[in-house]
Amino acid sequence: MHRDYSLGELAVQFGLELRGDPALRVSHVATLSQATEGSLSFLANSRYRKHLGSTRASAVVVVAADVEGCPVAALVDPNPYLAYARIATLMYPAASMTAGIHPSAVVATAAKVAPSVAIGPLCVIEAGAELGERVQVGAGCTVLAGARIGDDTQLMPRVTLYAGVHIGARCLLHTGAVIGADGFGFAPDAGTWFKVPQVGSVRIGDDVEIGANTTIDRGAIGDTIVENGAKLDNQIQVGHNVVIGAHTAIAACTGISGSTTIGRRCMIGGMVGFAGHLTIADDVVITGCSLVSASIRESGSYSSGMPTVETRAWRRMVANLRRFGEKER
Amino acid sequence: MHRDYSLGELAVQFGLELRGDPALRVSHVATLSQATEGSLSFLANSRYRKHLGSTRASAVVVVAADVEGCPVAALVDPNPYLAYARIATLMYPAASMTAGIHPSAVVATAAKVAPSVAIGPLCVIEAGAELGERVQVGAGCTVLAGARIGDDTQLMPRVTLYAGVHIGARCLLHTGAVIGADGFGFAPDAGTWFKVPQVGSVRIGDDVEIGANTTIDRGAIGDTIVENGAKLDNQIQVGHNVVIGAHTAIAACTGISGSTTIGRRCMIGGMVGFAGHLTIADDVVITGCSLVSASIRESGSYSSGMPTVETRAWRRMVANLRRFGEKER
Amino acid sequence: MHRDYSLGELAVQFGLELRGDPALRVSHVATLSQATEGSLSFLANSRYRKHLGSTRASAVVVVAADVEGCPVAALVDPNPYLAYARIATLMYPAASMTAGIHPSAVVATAAKVAPSVAIGPLCVIEAGAELGERVQVGAGCTVLAGARIGDDTQLMPRVTLYAGVHIGARCLLHTGAVIGADGFGFAPDAGTWFKVPQVGSVRIGDDVEIGANTTIDRGAIGDTIVENGAKLDNQIQVGHNVVIGAHTAIAACTGISGSTTIGRRCMIGGMVGFAGHLTIADDVVITGCSLVSASIRESGSYSSGMPTVETRAWRRMVANLRRFGEKER
Repeated sequence: MHRDYSLGELAVQFGLELRGDPALRVSHVATLSQATEGSLSFLANSRYRKHLGSTRASAVVVVAADVEGCPVAALVDPNPYLAYARIATLMYPAASMTAGIHPSAVVATAAKVAPSVAIGPLCVIEAGAELGERVQVGAGCTVLAGARIGDDTQLMPRVTLYAGVHIGARCLLHTGAVIGADGFGFAPDAGTWFKVPQVGSVRIGDDVEIGANTTIDRGAIGDTIVENGAKLDNQIQVGHNVVIGAHTAIAACTGISGSTTIGRRCMIGGMVGFAGHLTIADDVVITGCSLVSASIRESGSYSSGMPTVETRAWRRMVANLRRFGEKER
Repeated sequence: MHRDYSLGELAVQFGLELRGDPALRVSHVATLSQATEGSLSFLANSRYRKHLGSTRASAVVVVAADVEGCPVAALVDPNPYLAYARIATLMYPAASMTAGIHPSAVVATAAKVAPSVAIGPLCVIEAGAELGERVQVGAGCTVLAGARIGDDTQLMPRVTLYAGVHIGARCLLHTGAVIGADGFGFAPDAGTWFKVPQVGSVRIGDDVEIGANTTIDRGAIGDTIVENGAKLDNQIQVGHNVVIGAHTAIAACTGISGSTTIGRRCMIGGMVGFAGHLTIADDVVITGCSLVSASIRESGSYSSGMPTVETRAWRRMVANLRRFGEKER
Repeated sequence: MHRDYSLGELAVQFGLELRGDPALRVSHVATLSQATEGSLSFLANSRYRKHLGSTRASAVVVVAADVEGCPVAALVDPNPYLAYARIATLMYPAASMTAGIHPSAVVATAAKVAPSVAIGPLCVIEAGAELGERVQVGAGCTVLAGARIGDDTQLMPRVTLYAGVHIGARCLLHTGAVIGADGFGFAPDAGTWFKVPQVGSVRIGDDVEIGANTTIDRGAIGDTIVENGAKLDNQIQVGHNVVIGAHTAIAACTGISGSTTIGRRCMIGGMVGFAGHLTIADDVVITGCSLVSASIRESGSYSSGMPTVETRAWRRMVANLRRFGEKER
């Protein structure tokens, strides 16, 4: 599943400075502390520097300042994490499905499927669906009527695309992702709720990754949009008519309320809640477990996640806090 | 996919007052700001009133007080959002599956399936399951032994009903919903956990909507219950033996602890956590990202979601708050 | 689906003291307040003691101190909840699938499947997968290349195991669980994100239960680990390279950040967020809706979930709190 390379080959291919024997070979990746002979490791986070001196890796990707402390061969780059990622991508090529339609898949004759497409067992592809070049559809996926998938996009097993949604090129969708279910819209009607038809769709740009069991609802009117290069972790909920800006990264379990617009290059922590029809500027960082209940107009870092203390101390804090809620002070 | 109507037809059918040409036709819906010729729009939320004067819609559903400011034809109703929803339902009729069982579905001969039922490709319907009139089962659904589905209920693709659960009439369940998995019950046993059999079931009333990837656990003893007309958004977790009252609406990502009873007509925001065996009165509103850890006996609005501030200010707030937890003050 | 037993049989089999007629039979379980003739009930939580005196159960499992107040036959044990769980397991034997492969399943010839294994309809089992003795695979499961499942483990319908993950013996995985999807790892690359290959796997020990729609990501380098006897509720997110210690129980909707290590016998409440590469000691309790953003070195109970108050009072609390964030005080 992985291939081995000489340090010389890696240095040349990725333009890295090499301190060590170019003929030395690495066959797999490992952390500094778990590395053994043949391991390629990296140091990108100072909290792991303590493991550098004792590593048994064959080579480590480091910044120039860490070459001194590196007891083994060093591949030097100002961004060791990125350099490591590029090397690992080379060493561990992703398994690719073979083009063709598995005989157990149910593919409508009116679906438009490029000959280079791979459709796994037990998939359902409805009429009007369009699958671009080299699209890979894992086992058990469901692509409803009129959904479109761009070139080189990969659906892992059991992804569901509702009718009419658009997925861009080179995307990766993980198992359990649901794209295009109805937004949550109901009009009050004499003590009951009347369903508001969700007639918009979902448009996902290129190079987007969507995690396992993440849900992205279709628009009520107009579309829900995820722009190019955005990365969504697992179990994220994206409400109807949300816009997620290009290259924004969102960690797991975050929920985004309908009609919220998030800017570009934002970094949203895990389990963040957005409440309201909000507008979030570009380059905003929200730390984990925060509640965003008002628009954020300026880039910067925002928080409201309360860190744990001992339960007894917490009870005292809450009791004292409650005095703040009393009417007259 | 959508049909066009004259304003006269709409006014008559829905009992609306019309200010404008009854022969004018609308062919689709749009927001005030994105509307073009042929658009039907509506104004229900004052924050969008600023878009009314410049809208290019052909007609707008408004309250009487907004007729004056409406530059185009107006359909007048005291509840424009509801009137809009009714019109949109007419203009965008939901796609209906054709009755019959797809040849790739695996349907037990001992399942009871009305002739008007539609079962999509690659479904599994086990023995003893009962599907009422005009039930629609999307691709890849799994209906285990003895589960029952009421008339006119629709399962979108890849819904799972565990053994013995009951779903009422006219419900809509979205992809990834799991109804009837085991509740989380374990008895401590000398440092390990002994599984407590979850022998109850789930009963869901009529006209209930359940969002994508929402999970509703079966009762430990007795049933988990969702009453008529309740609406559950995506990624909600409902623990064993919970009761959700009629017409209560719950936004996405909320988690409800086992044996909690929520009243009727409640509105629960997103990412709310219920912790404990709680009782919540009728007509309670909980705002998003709150923690409900005690019963609520009176209707009203309750909150504990902490809104974000700049991270540096937040750190100072937390540091000061911690003094509240010190033992003696 | 359930069997009836005499109290004498139960007392003997489970070593319980019986106060009452050994010939009396119980046919089902019920709560104290909903019990009828033939019901077996139990009293394990003092909040339900008020229902003991009026119960119509045929027998109740109680501690010795509650025998006095029990108006019907009593089965006496120091741990009534555990004794009840054992009896209920006997009375409600779990339905077992019949060994064999359903003809609609797509099983690679290069998969290693013990003859005692049951594989349900429409499953996909890829090459190199290994299924131990008596493994049960529910309808619509997907087991990718090289995944291994230990003896007597049960997959409910529509579980997905990514390539190469290991599941131990006697585990139970519920519908929608996704084991081994990519961890969330991206290296910043000039305003875009470069995917870091997730080359580790997931190793799950014996006797682990995993709830519906829970996701456990594969390691970036090295494996994500869930140790023996851990119990995970629904909709939990486990990031890459997390370690969950033996016999730790985690309630629904909790999210665990990558590289976090949680000790043994911990009890983690619902909707808890872990943020950072943390280390949590053994025997730690975290109450619901807390944010754990620093390592916890000592066993004990920790909290930060803020309980709801009336919304108006909450607004005053927040306004006052914000003064704490002002720069100079």
